[in-house]
Amino acid sequence: MNRRSYRLEELAHLVQGEYFGEKDFQISNLASLELAQNQHICFVNGEKYLAQAEASDAGVYIVTETLKQQLTQKKNFIVVDNPYLAFAVLTHIFEAKILQRGIESTAKIHPSAIIADDAYIGHYVVIGENCVIGANTIIQSHSFIDDGVEVGKDCFVDAHVTITGQAKLKDRIRIHANTAIGTEGFGFAPYQGKWHRIAQLGSVQIGNDVRIGSNCSIDRGALDDTILEDGVIIDNLVQIAHNVHIGENTAIAAKCGIAGSARIGKNCILGGASGVVGHLEITDNVTLTAMSMVTKNISEAGTYSSGMGLFENSHWKKTIVRLRQLADVPLTQITKRLDYMQAQLESLESTLKLRK
Amino acid sequence: MNRRSYRLEELAHLVQGEYFGEKDFQISNLASLELAQNQHICFVNGEKYLAQAEASDAGVYIVTETLKQQLTQKKNFIVVDNPYLAFAVLTHIFEAKILQRGIESTAKIHPSAIIADDAYIGHYVVIGENCVIGANTIIQSHSFIDDGVEVGKDCFVDAHVTITGQAKLKDRIRIHANTAIGTEGFGFAPYQGKWHRIAQLGSVQIGNDVRIGSNCSIDRGALDDTILEDGVIIDNLVQIAHNVHIGENTAIAAKCGIAGSARIGKNCILGGASGVVGHLEITDNVTLTAMSMVTKNISEAGTYSSGMGLFENSHWKKTIVRLRQLADVPLTQITKRLDYMQAQLESLESTLKLRK
Amino acid sequence: MNRRSYRLEELAHLVQGEYFGEKDFQISNLASLELAQNQHICFVNGEKYLAQAEASDAGVYIVTETLKQQLTQKKNFIVVDNPYLAFAVLTHIFEAKILQRGIESTAKIHPSAIIADDAYIGHYVVIGENCVIGANTIIQSHSFIDDGVEVGKDCFVDAHVTITGQAKLKDRIRIHANTAIGTEGFGFAPYQGKWHRIAQLGSVQIGNDVRIGSNCSIDRGALDDTILEDGVIIDNLVQIAHNVHIGENTAIAAKCGIAGSARIGKNCILGGASGVVGHLEITDNVTLTAMSMVTKNISEAGTYSSGMGLFENSHWKKTIVRLRQLADVPLTQITKRLDYMQAQLESLESTLKLRK
Repeated sequence: MNRRSYRLEELAHLVQGEYFGEKDFQISNLASLELAQNQHICFVNGEKYLAQAEASDAGVYIVTETLKQQLTQKKNFIVVDNPYLAFAVLTHIFEAKILQRGIESTAKIHPSAIIADDAYIGHYVVIGENCVIGANTIIQSHSFIDDGVEVGKDCFVDAHVTITGQAKLKDRIRIHANTAIGTEGFGFAPYQGKWHRIAQLGSVQIGNDVRIGSNCSIDRGALDDTILEDGVIIDNLVQIAHNVHIGENTAIAAKCGIAGSARIGKNCILGGASGVVGHLEITDNVTLTAMSMVTKNISEAGTYSSGMGLFENSHWKKTIVRLRQLADVPLTQITKRLDYMQAQLESLESTLKLRK
Repeated sequence: MNRRSYRLEELAHLVQGEYFGEKDFQISNLASLELAQNQHICFVNGEKYLAQAEASDAGVYIVTETLKQQLTQKKNFIVVDNPYLAFAVLTHIFEAKILQRGIESTAKIHPSAIIADDAYIGHYVVIGENCVIGANTIIQSHSFIDDGVEVGKDCFVDAHVTITGQAKLKDRIRIHANTAIGTEGFGFAPYQGKWHRIAQLGSVQIGNDVRIGSNCSIDRGALDDTILEDGVIIDNLVQIAHNVHIGENTAIAAKCGIAGSARIGKNCILGGASGVVGHLEITDNVTLTAMSMVTKNISEAGTYSSGMGLFENSHWKKTIVRLRQLADVPLTQITKRLDYMQAQLESLESTLKLRK
Repeated sequence: MNRRSYRLEELAHLVQGEYFGEKDFQISNLASLELAQNQHICFVNGEKYLAQAEASDAGVYIVTETLKQQLTQKKNFIVVDNPYLAFAVLTHIFEAKILQRGIESTAKIHPSAIIADDAYIGHYVVIGENCVIGANTIIQSHSFIDDGVEVGKDCFVDAHVTITGQAKLKDRIRIHANTAIGTEGFGFAPYQGKWHRIAQLGSVQIGNDVRIGSNCSIDRGALDDTILEDGVIIDNLVQIAHNVHIGENTAIAAKCGIAGSARIGKNCILGGASGVVGHLEITDNVTLTAMSMVTKNISEAGTYSSGMGLFENSHWKKTIVRLRQLADVPLTQITKRLDYMQAQLESLESTLKLRK
C-alpha cells in the first residue's frame, strides 16, 4: 500500500470532480462501504447502495449529484458524473507501485538483448538472444523471455511468466503470474494411426494495453501469427489456441477456451468458461453469457447463451429422462394435431346438435 | 518413498485398531489390492471389494470386523471402524518427507523478511520485503513470495508458486506447483469504448488447513479481501476471482471457476468444472454435481445439477433440433388440452350411445 | 527461425515427393497461402483451397497430382499423396532448433543425478537426488525436476515445468511451459466434518512420444500410478487426476478434465473442455465433441456429444422455461394419446356417417 494520504481537494481534482465538505480532510485509502473507516473514501455505485452508504463509517463518498442529495447525514463528498470511473482512477493513486529499476544481479541476460535503462529485471529472470525490453517495463522474478521476444514500454510481466515463440508485445501490456505465451500450438497430422507433430513456425502479436491474467496459455501460430489486438483484456486460466485473432477491446472472462484459427471481433464480451470451436468467426459486439458453447459463426451482434442452468438434482434427473425422449417426439406436429383434432371435435359436436 | 518398514502391531497402534495374525509381520508399504505384494498392507473399503481382496497378494488387510469374517483365507488384519480413514492415516507414515531445513544459498531473501529457523527455503526462491515464513514451513524451488506476504507454520508451498498481493496464509496450508495467489483481480471500468483498469487494493486471506492444487489462480480483492476459510480444499486449475468468500471445509474439484464476489457457504462440495457466476450466494451444505452452472443464489441445502449428459452424436443432433423448437411449444398446455379433448370425446360418445 | 534456405529438389526429396518446375528454386520458409511471398512454399489441403492457392504469391506448392492439374498458372510444385503430412514433415526443417548442449552454470544439480553429456540443462534448473536425464534431452530455464524423477532421451521440457512425485518419463516426450506433473492427487477422507488428507504414494508413468501442453496438471496416483501410454497428445490447461489411465495415441484437446481413476482407451479424441467423471471407462476409438460431459461408461466406439449449443439470448430464456417444465410433461404418452384420440374421433365420425 502507498503510505501517503491525500486531501479531499486533491482527490477531487484528480478525478475532475467537485468536492463538498472539508477540503483538507485527510484520506489514507479507498475502501468498501462495508469495511470503511473514517479516514477512507468510498464510491456509491447507484441508488441500490444508498442504504449501505448511510450505514458506512467512511469519511468521504464519491457520488453523483443526485446521490449526494439523498445522503443527507454525510458531510464530505466528491461529486462526479461516473463514480465507478472515478473510483477506477483513484485505485491507481493508492496502489503500491514497484519502484525498483535496473537489473538484479541474479538475472541472466544474453549480451545481444537490449534492456531499457529504466526497466526493472527481477531476480533469476532469464532473457535470451536478441530480446528487447522497453522503457519502464517491469519483469518480475523468474520470468523467462526466450530468444527473439520483444516487450514494449510500460509493461508489467509478473513472476514465472514464460514468453517464447518470438512473440512481439507492444506497450502498456500487463501479464500476470505463471502465464505462458508463444508456446507451441496443438498441431498434429494423423497418419497411419499416429499423430505427427507439426512444428509451429508462426508467432504471437500482442497489441497495446492488452491485459492477460494468470495461468493463461496463448499459443504461437502454425504459420501465421496468433493476434491479440489493442485493448483486449483476458482473465485467468484462459486458452488461446494457435492462429486465433481477437479484435480490439474484447473482454474474455476466466476459463474461456478459444480453439485454433477462430476469429473474434471487436468489443465482444465472453462470459466465464465459454468455449469457441476452431475456424469460426464471431462478429463485433457479441456478448456470450457464462459457459456458452459456440460451434457456428455468429454474424449478428447481440447476446447469446448456452447451458440449462441449475436444477435441484431429482428434478434434473427427470428432466434428463425427458430430454433423452425428445428426439422421438415431433414437437411442432403436436400443436398442429391438437388444433386439427379440436376442429374435428367441434365439427362432430355441431353435427350432433343439428341432428337433435 | 520412506524406506523404513513397520511391524503389524506398530501400524495397528497408529490407527488405533486391533491386529490379528503375526504381530511382527513386516510391512514395507501401502498398496492397491490389485498390485499389492506380500510385504504390503491394503485396505478393503466395503463389501464390493471382497472379491478383489480375496484375490490379492497383500500380506495385511485393513478391514471392519464384518469384512474380516468374510476373508477367511487371509491371516493378517488390522480391524478398525473406518478402514478408509485408517488408510488415510497410514499414507502419512509411508510418505516421503522433505527433511531439508534451512535456506539454500541460492535463495534471495530480503533482509527484512523473517524466516523461521526450521523452515526450508529451496533453490532460487525469492522472498520479498517484510515477509514472514513460519516454523517448519517448506517453500520449494523457484517459488516467489512477494513483499508483505505472510505464510504460517507447517505449510508446504511447492515449486513455481507465486504468492503476491500481500496475501496472509495461516498454518498447515498446502499449495501445489505453479499456482498463483494474490494476483490482480479482473476489474475494469468500461468508459467510452475502452476498459479502464481498476488497480486491486484488497488482499487474500487463507485459513488453517487449506489445500490448493496446482495451476490455480486465487486473485486478491478489489478493496476488501478474497477469503478462504479454514479447512477449504481445492483441486487443480481452479479460478477463485476477487472478493470471493469460501466457507469452512468446502471442497472444490478441479477446473471450477468462482466469479467475483460470490459467497459460498460451509461444507459445500463443488463437482469438477462447475461455474459460479459473480455476486451470488450459495448457502451451507450444498453439493453441485460435475459441470454445474450456477447463475442464481442457492438458499437451500441439497444437491444440484446442470448439463444434459452424453448423447450418441446422431441422437444428440436430433435432440438439439427439438430443443430449438421447445420455446414455441406450450408444454404445460398440451396435457391440459389433451385432457379437455378427451372429456369432449367421451361426452360425444355417451351422447351417441344414448341416442342409439 | 532456421536461416538456411533449401532448393525445391531437396525439399521434394525430404518428403518423398516429385518436384515440377525449377529444381534449384530457393525456398526460405513455409507460409500460409494468404501471406506467402515468392520465396515461400505452401501446401494446398484439398480442392476448397484452390481459389486461395491461385491468388497466392507463394513460389512453390505442395499438392496432389489432381490439385496440380487444376493450378495451371503455377510453375513450381511438390506432388505427394498427402500434402498435409508433407507439410508436417517440412515444418521440422524450418523450425528453430535449440542447439545448446551441456549444463548452464546456474543450474543446481544434485551430485547423485545422472545427466547425459549431450543433454541441455538451462539456467536456474533444479534437478534433485537420483534423477536421470537422457541423451539429447532439453530442460529449459527454471524447470524443477524433483528427487527420483527420470526423463528419457530426445525429450523437450519447456520453462517453469515442475516434475515431481518420482515420475518416470520415456523418450521423445514434449512438455510445454508451466505444466505440473506428479503433483499430489486430490485425495481426502471425510471424517467428523473435516477433510483428512491422503498422502499420495503412487507416481506418474509417461510413455514414448507423449506431448503435454502448457499449464497442465497431471497428478501422481494415490497408490498405483497415473499412466499415459505411448503417443498420447494433450493440449493446454488439461487436468489429469490421480490414477487416470490414458490409452495409446489418444488426443485430448485444451481444457479437458479427467477425474480420478477414469480409464480412457486407445485412439480416442476428446474435444476441448470435455469432462470425464471419475472411476469410469471409455473404450477405444471414442470421439467426444467439444464440451462433452461423460458421467457413465462408454462401451461402444463412436462419436458422442453434450451441450445445447448456442441460442440467441431471448430464445434461450424461453427455452430454459420450457426445459424446467419438461420433467412434468409425459412426452412419450402425448403421441400415444393423440393417436388414441384420433382413432376415437374417426370411429365417432364413421358411426355418425352410418346413422345418416
